[in-house]
Amino acid sequence: MENNIRKIGVFTSGGDAPGMNAAIRAVVRACTYYKKDAYGIMRGYEGMIEGDLVKLGARSVGNIIQRGGTILKSARSEEFRTAEGRKKAYENLKAEGIEALVAIGGDGTFTGLHKFYEEYRVPSVCIPGTIDNDLPGTDYTIGYDTATNTAVEAIDRIRDTALSHNRLFFVEVMGRNSGYIAINSGIAGGATGIVIPEENMSFDQLYNLLGADKETSKKSNLIVVAEGSKIGDANTLARKVAERSSYFDIKVTILGHLQRGGAPTYFDRVLASKMGIAAVEGLMQGQKDVMVGIKDNKIVYNDFNTIMAQKHHEIDSESLRIAKILSI
Amino acid sequence: MENNIRKIGVFTSGGDAPGMNAAIRAVVRACTYYKKDAYGIMRGYEGMIEGDLVKLGARSVGNIIQRGGTILKSARSEEFRTAEGRKKAYENLKAEGIEALVAIGGDGTFTGLHKFYEEYRVPSVCIPGTIDNDLPGTDYTIGYDTATNTAVEAIDRIRDTALSHNRLFFVEVMGRNSGYIAINSGIAGGATGIVIPEENMSFDQLYNLLGADKETSKKSNLIVVAEGSKIGDANTLARKVAERSSYFDIKVTILGHLQRGGAPTYFDRVLASKMGIAAVEGLMQGQKDVMVGIKDNKIVYNDFNTIMAQKHHEIDSESLRIAKILSI
Amino acid sequence: MENNIRKIGVFTSGGDAPGMNAAIRAVVRACTYYKKDAYGIMRGYEGMIEGDLVKLGARSVGNIIQRGGTILKSARSEEFRTAEGRKKAYENLKAEGIEALVAIGGDGTFTGLHKFYEEYRVPSVCIPGTIDNDLPGTDYTIGYDTATNTAVEAIDRIRDTALSHNRLFFVEVMGRNSGYIAINSGIAGGATGIVIPEENMSFDQLYNLLGADKETSKKSNLIVVAEGSKIGDANTLARKVAERSSYFDIKVTILGHLQRGGAPTYFDRVLASKMGIAAVEGLMQGQKDVMVGIKDNKIVYNDFNTIMAQKHHEIDSESLRIAKILSI
Amino acid sequence: MENNIRKIGVFTSGGDAPGMNAAIRAVVRACTYYKKDAYGIMRGYEGMIEGDLVKLGARSVGNIIQRGGTILKSARSEEFRTAEGRKKAYENLKAEGIEALVAIGGDGTFTGLHKFYEEYRVPSVCIPGTIDNDLPGTDYTIGYDTATNTAVEAIDRIRDTALSHNRLFFVEVMGRNSGYIAINSGIAGGATGIVIPEENMSFDQLYNLLGADKETSKKSNLIVVAEGSKIGDANTLARKVAERSSYFDIKVTILGHLQRGGAPTYFDRVLASKMGIAAVEGLMQGQKDVMVGIKDNKIVYNDFNTIMAQKHHEIDSESLRIAKILSI
Repeated sequence: MENNIRKIGVFTSGGDAPGMNAAIRAVVRACTYYKKDAYGIMRGYEGMIEGDLVKLGARSVGNIIQRGGTILKSARSEEFRTAEGRKKAYENLKAEGIEALVAIGGDGTFTGLHKFYEEYRVPSVCIPGTIDNDLPGTDYTIGYDTATNTAVEAIDRIRDTALSHNRLFFVEVMGRNSGYIAINSGIAGGATGIVIPEENMSFDQLYNLLGADKETSKKSNLIVVAEGSKIGDANTLARKVAERSSYFDIKVTILGHLQRGGAPTYFDRVLASKMGIAAVEGLMQGQKDVMVGIKDNKIVYNDFNTIMAQKHHEIDSESLRIAKILSI
Repeated sequence: MENNIRKIGVFTSGGDAPGMNAAIRAVVRACTYYKKDAYGIMRGYEGMIEGDLVKLGARSVGNIIQRGGTILKSARSEEFRTAEGRKKAYENLKAEGIEALVAIGGDGTFTGLHKFYEEYRVPSVCIPGTIDNDLPGTDYTIGYDTATNTAVEAIDRIRDTALSHNRLFFVEVMGRNSGYIAINSGIAGGATGIVIPEENMSFDQLYNLLGADKETSKKSNLIVVAEGSKIGDANTLARKVAERSSYFDIKVTILGHLQRGGAPTYFDRVLASKMGIAAVEGLMQGQKDVMVGIKDNKIVYNDFNTIMAQKHHEIDSESLRIAKILSI
Repeated sequence: MENNIRKIGVFTSGGDAPGMNAAIRAVVRACTYYKKDAYGIMRGYEGMIEGDLVKLGARSVGNIIQRGGTILKSARSEEFRTAEGRKKAYENLKAEGIEALVAIGGDGTFTGLHKFYEEYRVPSVCIPGTIDNDLPGTDYTIGYDTATNTAVEAIDRIRDTALSHNRLFFVEVMGRNSGYIAINSGIAGGATGIVIPEENMSFDQLYNLLGADKETSKKSNLIVVAEGSKIGDANTLARKVAERSSYFDIKVTILGHLQRGGAPTYFDRVLASKMGIAAVEGLMQGQKDVMVGIKDNKIVYNDFNTIMAQKHHEIDSESLRIAKILSI
Repeated sequence: MENNIRKIGVFTSGGDAPGMNAAIRAVVRACTYYKKDAYGIMRGYEGMIEGDLVKLGARSVGNIIQRGGTILKSARSEEFRTAEGRKKAYENLKAEGIEALVAIGGDGTFTGLHKFYEEYRVPSVCIPGTIDNDLPGTDYTIGYDTATNTAVEAIDRIRDTALSHNRLFFVEVMGRNSGYIAINSGIAGGATGIVIPEENMSFDQLYNLLGADKETSKKSNLIVVAEGSKIGDANTLARKVAERSSYFDIKVTILGHLQRGGAPTYFDRVLASKMGIAAVEGLMQGQKDVMVGIKDNKIVYNDFNTIMAQKHHEIDSESLRIAKILSI
């Protein structure tokens, strides 16, 4: 039951995430497969407003599946928040004959896309691409698996030093509203404690985990802190521990932007590939204002209002429970 | 509803897989947490027969979560296939007071464990640890995620050469009965073709994918072949292509054992950690002859007969479909 | 003392090596810096004969320093071995106004370039790019550092399995005439034995290293074999050991082409950058028929005849000596 | 010309560096080879004072060559700075019969060792182990090669994001007194500018490199800053650029301690192995108060006073020159 869409525009928006290129490639090749024309829109909504479009064929997306970042570039656009900006964008799409959109990005991207759909009725599918894994409607977002592995590799390196010097390390990972990277890199990194935005752990509880008691405690400790920690960032927590006890030799590392880049893992490449194809097939089947997702290993289409009604992707309470047992 | 098990033996058996150490650690720490004694049994059933046991505490499994291989070592045991061998093993366990077992390994391991359970009624849980992801009853086995990423990293390197020389590469990956590593490393590696044990692709169909036609074909091509290919291994397929056309500059790489080792990914560490805890908790709840698994992100216990009734873990037909679209 | 060269052609030839792109970038940017025009010649001598040239500016070589392979592609050219082929090549260079050449490749590349220089007097500098590190006149060739690290990473993975199963592994690495990768990946990989083309080790001597004697020997062993081994390749050696003793559980892995690709190490990027600049500066200073090299951390220019008079880059005998002590 | 030393103590001191374990292994195996007894001294001078020694054999150092950190642990010792502390240390060595020392560490380690030699005449050799490569008397210190590659990998990831968003990134790397890691990770990472402690670059010069001029400048830029920068750390420099121009979208990443850990590269493993053996052989040949080094690929022994007379290991001015050409 195919509709008549002929030209599809694809773009990336918001923070870059590993696997975005794999998603672009999948969208373009699905277009080729189904005999649609694919257009890349540069720098997200910015390029849509400026009319910065480029035609893409199956060969233009060769040798990009393994690359971090996004060949279409990304930007945040203030102008697209205005009615005028969106009007320009629509006129550019119309002039080029683009009848449908695939956006790759996070919740800001999806919100913009929905607004645009409401005004101009351009059928559009959002692909969740963000390392934070904070979107409802999908078990995994593109980039999360890679970012977590990057964090774990960094923690592995830091552990070498922690063990050699019997130190206490605070490692801050990304996640402003979501503890996904923190909880899973913390479990995988053998952390003594994990501080995430979602959990009501007090500083005292954290301090007690460290067991500042020479006889029974671990000789070295790692605390993984999500940047959205409610009880202080890594530097603050380190300072507070130091104020309470001189027992620990404390260091802080903030992983920062290196979590965003790098070659995507197989998981992110396959996920991005599946979602990219599903986006094109969704448009062909009449999907109009949705985010594609993966739930229990199956592709789903979430409509905008359902997604936005949910706060965000909740941390599995089971993960918190096992983190506690493992850090004994 | 806890039972009275006091001492639990844990061992690894069959081919090693990254994440086995993370599973051992989780079993031991769960024992500590629940105030059980944990014993490591060296070299699988061999050590059980020889009485090669070592008591393990929470600190004995520190700094191993990131290590490939298995600190308990692994071996295949002919003697355990005999009634006499199993009798010796049982007597050793009894002498030490071990009341339950956790085995980490593949289907051979589980089969042995089941036989032992039938004879001696030692409650036991098997944790699926094998890179092949070929066991029913679980979406993922421990080691599969790491092995697939290792294969993809190797393919990424090989692609550099393939592209620089416009070559056709055959890359053979592990998987005697299962195409999981092949299909997913193939999709993630941007393969032109993927040959797996499960699919009835003829050599002609494979050959046609290559498009030995200067105008329209890709300049370089990668074919990923599972070792269990029904139409010939990588060397055979390379030879057959060469016989049919001199167009291609063909090379073969067999990844082999390097897919087994290395630091596990976050996914395998977390999976192993969850399964290790679930194994101990399962025993405490009265599980007796089961394999722990993860289905749709939830822990399940599969009893032996249900598992063995299923042939093996089937490849998602959706993966085959998307591989075809992506290689256009 | 600058001469008047205005247009410089650059190309890669022979087997690809990580760092070739870094060298291309350095040549092009040095041209920009010194206000020369840079032309890329595609697919080595093939593209020279076909006139497949592309003008390159500082921005055309952005974001390639980290990439394996070569953006200019590489090929082996039969036609360039003929006088006619070289004549075509010269005419293409002349037509475009190219007055000097920088070639990146191994000894075959340099030999071709020298022949071409003798006939047409086009000043040319060869940059040694080959993973084998087998060229005289330089302590290091571009790609060797990366390839050795790739081999070591693979050996590290294999060691996990060797240790878990008490196995004997034969690992075959690249090096047809040169044992550089083998000797250094062997030392770094903790090998029990290392077999290289340059050394007169008999099979018996190798066998004795293994100590097939349960009491005193290592439980697991790795033997690293260069592909140019004079006493048999990895498969042959494995078979011969198996024929003599059933004590060992033996496996073989042939690393093959995955040693060629991948992101270059810092060392190869810096080496390639220095050599690329030195090539352009050498041409400006009047160098004509030379290979650039690095000796004792200093750039040198080797003229063709001096280089070719030396057989190849000899293995440091000190390395053989320390390998022996370390494998005790 | 061997002397009669029978027992050698080995320890690591100061900040850990990848390759320290490879050096420990080489010292111990050289002892075995030459029939000396090897003793590990835990936590550097601390363990020497506390008498925390452990006998090591060839098998005790198996499977450590690939591990970051140090199995002997490291610490900074205040007590060893006192005459009393050193007296205790000497008495512990004497009680155990240890007649010579091998220390692995940086200049602080060597200074302590020299003081100890002057007082107690225990022959001792220092092996330079520090990621900073800041010691005179050797072209390379153990850990530097690995740390630089770690920094480059991080920069590669950050570049993905910089390019995707047309951003300016400041990346701070280790090096309080030395710009080695910065200059070489900067060249290898394709940095627009590199700020090191040794160079007199003003902030204005740095600012001008960025070309805050929309037409001709690079779209994205990376500035690598050594922590010992004389014109402000990465955060300060970022703030100052932001104050002067709103053109740039600026981010900062401080790599920090993750540069210390991780599996050593082949280069660091081989270097450490050579130096470890050379330390033992040096003691056997009568060396007494020296640091082993590698100069132009040859092992050298530097006596304490010669080393300390030199300020530190100077940056090659050639590197600064090529960095400038490459960033055009």
